[in-house]
This record gives sequence, structure tokens and C-alpha cells, in this order.
Amino acid sequence: MTLWARFRTREGREGFGQLTEGEIHEHAGDLFTTAEPTRMQVALHDVTLLAPCRPTKIIALWNNFYALAAKLGKAIPAHPLFLLKPASSVIGPDEPIHRPRSYQGKVAYEGELGIVIGRQCKDLTVEQAHAAIFGYTCVNDVTAAQVLNENADFTQWCRAKGYDTFGAIGPVISSDVDVSSAHVTTRLDGVERQNYPLSDMICPPEQLVSCLSQDMTLYPGDVIACGTSLGVGSVPDGSTVEVSIEGIGSLRNRLGAQQGAPDS
Amino acid sequence: MTLWARFRTREGREGFGQLTEGEIHEHAGDLFTTAEPTRMQVALHDVTLLAPCRPTKIIALWNNFYALAAKLGKAIPAHPLFLLKPASSVIGPDEPIHRPRSYQGKVAYEGELGIVIGRQCKDLTVEQAHAAIFGYTCVNDVTAAQVLNENADFTQWCRAKGYDTFGAIGPVISSDVDVSSAHVTTRLDGVERQNYPLSDMICPPEQLVSCLSQDMTLYPGDVIACGTSLGVGSVPDGSTVEVSIEGIGSLRNRLGAQQGAPDS
Repeated sequence: MTLWARFRTREGREGFGQLTEGEIHEHAGDLFTTAEPTRMQVALHDVTLLAPCRPTKIIALWNNFYALAAKLGKAIPAHPLFLLKPASSVIGPDEPIHRPRSYQGKVAYEGELGIVIGRQCKDLTVEQAHAAIFGYTCVNDVTAAQVLNENADFTQWCRAKGYDTFGAIGPVISSDVDVSSAHVTTRLDGVERQNYPLSDMICPPEQLVSCLSQDMTLYPGDVIACGTSLGVGSVPDGSTVEVSIEGIGSLRNRLGAQQGAPDS
Repeated sequence: MTLWARFRTREGREGFGQLTEGEIHEHAGDLFTTAEPTRMQVALHDVTLLAPCRPTKIIALWNNFYALAAKLGKAIPAHPLFLLKPASSVIGPDEPIHRPRSYQGKVAYEGELGIVIGRQCKDLTVEQAHAAIFGYTCVNDVTAAQVLNENADFTQWCRAKGYDTFGAIGPVISSDVDVSSAHVTTRLDGVERQNYPLSDMICPPEQLVSCLSQDMTLYPGDVIACGTSLGVGSVPDGSTVEVSIEGIGSLRNRLGAQQGAPDS
């Protein structure tokens, strides 16, 4: 299994490399094009992991699992349905999710598979899409649930899901995992709340990348959050959400204090 | 009037500077932080103007003019309603708008005022917002109208407005215009289709930047498209849309052939 991590050392230096048995084998160059191993390695416990890539956008799917579509009574979409989460929403493993100032309502977790794009691409066939996928990561697609339908005329997808820290990705990118037989598991303070098979996905990764590349140019590091399934719920303040996928790892983020306030 | 332009020379060199009487007085450094005049100038007719900034995102407002809200019978929103257009949608003056492949439906123009952010900012007061605005540009918020409501369960704002070339901005950024008394005029092949006063805006620029900065971090070069008013309509293939605002200029873009096909 090839796992790519980005990190920051205690001295503030940032780097990236392959994670093997508690050690990150550093690489130089660009993760997507020119990564070359250096001779340096750092111990995982000596560094802070960062979001494993820096997306220009997160394309977040809605209604992409048969089980959830059936539960909600929604028709199967003819084309992937999505909203955009901005780059400013991205955080990495163990970074706190901040409740927006002046929002007292429910904050929801959504455990999801994230596709990491490896090259600039447009109008791909399904076959070409396979080569454009660099790997996979875990996503917590955080949502300010009461903002979503606050206005009767306009569903505020981008606002409810676009707040700073509402796009958690990581802990690493797995570049050779077979996700088709994997499950997404979400635990809230250690208690399992979601456990769904990726085989239930309506529009699977290669087809998704092909379809979305008809809509817009995708860039290296862009993330497609594949949508969630059954078991979405609320995160109490101070609770930790852990999204796990076999072959990738576990992404943990705690809902901290409000932005601007000290994060206890 | 201080007008900032980005350009590319015939030799492929890119630069930026102040536009005065057909000449661009080149500047070095970063437009938003360290712009310093050089002694070089280029004639406007010798260069190609580029999008005047490179947004990480366009925040596009919906229902932000009283006249259009009244016509559509929509309530006045309590908080700005918006969607996100990705960086990949951005084009500059005179660049062609491309009809998406496999989309045969109506393509709509929306002439709008664009606010250009000058500094990284978050949680601004209305007073602070004034200082965070670098200037103003014209926007054509292009929309694939039939995509918007194609799915009965999910209004596809980001998809319908997020296609490559659907975020036209320019021709320049005016950094000292008073937009409060200006009008947005949109002409289709020379015939006026929109002419509305910016004084009719529900949430005016400083308040808009303050409100949106509560929702997400804004970055230098990010553009807020302030929403449109009466007179939105369809662009026939081959037609040119011209969005003009006093004190800024005129942004012209032609709806060309489909992407991938030669643009005749």
C-alpha cells in the first residue's frame, strides 16, 4: 500500500513523502509529477500531518448512494449532482473543526470517500479518468445543517458546507488502494455511526471523474467528495469524528470552540 | 480614475499595470501588496488583455436586487444567498465563452458588478470591509439555464454556472470608482438588454464583503459577483455580450463554438 502524507516539523518545515510503519520517507519535487525519494525520513510522532494535498476546489456529491437515495425517496440522478466547497474550507487530520461565529445550530458529519485528482484534465472518457486519479483519501464533509434550508427560496449548499474548517481531508492519500470493496466507517467519540460499502455508489470513481470533467477542468490535488450514505448525524461541541476507510486510514477531527475564541 | 489591467504581449510575456489613454504603465511586484511602477509602458493595441485578477473562487450572489426580487416575487434575504463558481470558470475580456459539449440548451448572460478583494480577510465589520475591497470590475455570470433545474431534487447552481469560460471578468479593475451611483448595462450584439442602477442593490458592497467574510476566508483577487437585476436573457451562438459599468469599462465576450471544436 502506498500512502502519501504531507507534514510540518516542529521547526516549521513542510514536506511530503511515503508513510511506512511510522516513518515518512521524504520526497522532493511535486507530489503529482516529479516526486523523487530523498534519503531523509522523519518519524510520524515527531511531525504534524497536514491535509495531504491542497485542492483548488472540493467537488462534493449529493445523492450518490443507492441506500440513502432509497431512504430519502430520491430518484437516481442522470448526472452527478454536486456543490463546491472552497479551498478555504480545507483542514487536515487532527485539525479542529470550528463552529461558525453566530451559528448555534446543528453541525453534521458526513463520512465520505475522497478522490484525489493527479493531473489537469477535461472531457475525459471513463478509461482516461482512471489515469487521472492519483489516489483516495477520507473526507468529513461537515455541514451547518440549519443554514442549508434557512431560506425558503434558495438551498444554501455552498454556504452550509463551505465554512472554514468544514472540508476535512486525510490523513493520507492512498495511491494504490482498491476502494471498490472497501467500507466507509464514521465514529462519533468512538461509537460507530456510519458503516457503508463503497460498492453501493451510484456513480463510481472513474465514471464520476469522467462526468465531472465534462463540467469543468480538474487540477492536480482537487478532491471529489463522493457523497455519503446512511447514518449522518449531529456532532456535539467537543466531540471527535473519525472517518475510516480500509487501505487509507482514519481521519479524526474534533468540533472545537467557535472561530476567534480559544479552542479548549 | 485608476484602472488596473493584466496583459500578455505578442511574445507571450505577462504583466500588469495602470491603464491611461491607451497605454499601460507597467508595474512590478504583486498587484495587491507591492505594486511599484516601472518605467516601461505598452500600447493597449499591442497586447491582449487578460482577466484582471486570478480569483481562487467567485462568490456569485442570487436575489440581490430589489427590482428583480419584486418581479420574481421573492422575499428579501436575511443573509446574502450565493453559490461558488470555480477558478476554472474564469476568462478575461474578449475571450470566447464556450458552449459545453453535449449541451444544446439556452445559455444566459447576467451582467453584474464584481467586487475584487485586496487582502486575506475573515470576520470583517462593515468598516473593515471597506479597506478589504481593492476595486471593482464587470462580470458576465454565464449560466447554462436548462441545467439549473434539470434535476427535480437538486438545483444545480454550481454546475450550471461553473463551466469553463462561464465566469467572464474585466476588462480592468477600477480601484477608485464610486459604484453607488453607477449603472450596469448589458448589450447583446449592440442592443441594450439590461440597464439597472447599483443603488438598487439589497446588500451593498461593504456589507456584502462583511457578511461573506463571516462565512469564509476571502483571498486577494477573489471576486464577489453582486448578482443581477432585470433583463437577463439568452445568448444565441455567435453573439457578443457586452457588460459596461461607468468608471470601469466594457467587458465583451462572444459565445463561440463548442469546446474542442474550432472557434470560428
